Amino acid sequence: MIEQRFLEDLAVGEINTTAEVSLSATDMVDFARQYDPQPMHTGMEAGTGDTFNGLIASGWHTAALVMRLLVDSRPLGSTPLLGLGVDDLRWPKPLRAGDTVRAEGEILSITRSRSKPEYGVVRLRVTARNQRKEVVYVMTASLWVPCRNP
Amino acid sequence: MIEQRFLEDLAVGEINTTAEVSLSATDMVDFARQYDPQPMHTGMEAGTGDTFNGLIASGWHTAALVMRLLVDSRPLGSTPLLGLGVDDLRWPKPLRAGDTVRAEGEILSITRSRSKPEYGVVRLRVTARNQRKEVVYVMTASLWVPCRNP
Repeated sequence: MIEQRFLEDLAVGEINTTAEVSLSATDMVDFARQYDPQPMHTGMEAGTGDTFNGLIASGWHTAALVMRLLVDSRPLGSTPLLGLGVDDLRWPKPLRAGDTVRAEGEILSITRSRSKPEYGVVRLRVTARNQRKEVVYVMTASLWVPCRNP
Repeated sequence: MIEQRFLEDLAVGEINTTAEVSLSATDMVDFARQYDPQPMHTGMEAGTGDTFNGLIASGWHTAALVMRLLVDSRPLGSTPLLGLGVDDLRWPKPLRAGDTVRAEGEILSITRSRSKPEYGVVRLRVTARNQRKEVVYVMTASLWVPCRNP
């Protein structure tokens, strides 16, 4: 039984590390065909992959893969990860087929909501790295978290 | 034949509107099971959908759907949409099964790269609305665009 964590249970500076996931070429191309059908992601036009030394994953695929890692790592216990928004999202390096990704979440701030005192906003800095420890994705999510004592 | 548009061909204030897409419950749950397996997106735990008056799409699914609309609308002609990052991403309202989304992209700024003068950065403000014209997703993407005259 996974415990529910409330706003009061969290601390600034808290870090959680996710498991890792490998990206297959098939998954990369499947995602791209559905959501981001561009030559550098699908390989559908000969030669176009060359600019990037081969196919690269859609940045939104990277974002989705990291979300899965975060969900599975349960930084808030059984409390859902409900995002209000994201700031400072960057893809410093592309993710390629065969790469492995692992992410880390760090709590930057915890703020009670003024309008809804039974909730608060947790800013979580997420950094994802490939198997060479190069950062492939970084962003700061604002999560809506219930309080134990409104 | 779709023409390639270069940095010099673009203008601040330029707006392009995408086609629209409807979100089915099956697609919503399929995406969530793979990338964001939480009760409010998958409906896997009875009653949990109630907080949101029913299932809501993963915010990353909304982001991916809007990317597809943008790619198909070809705001840069045959020049790929290559994102360096995203700022000020918000999901003001959730997207639900049966909803229809349409997006609009507006060029906010055009800046030559100092380090690589053959490229520039275009900041594109993207706003997506449902069939009731409510904003469900907004963000500003930074795109890497080649110049005609380096």
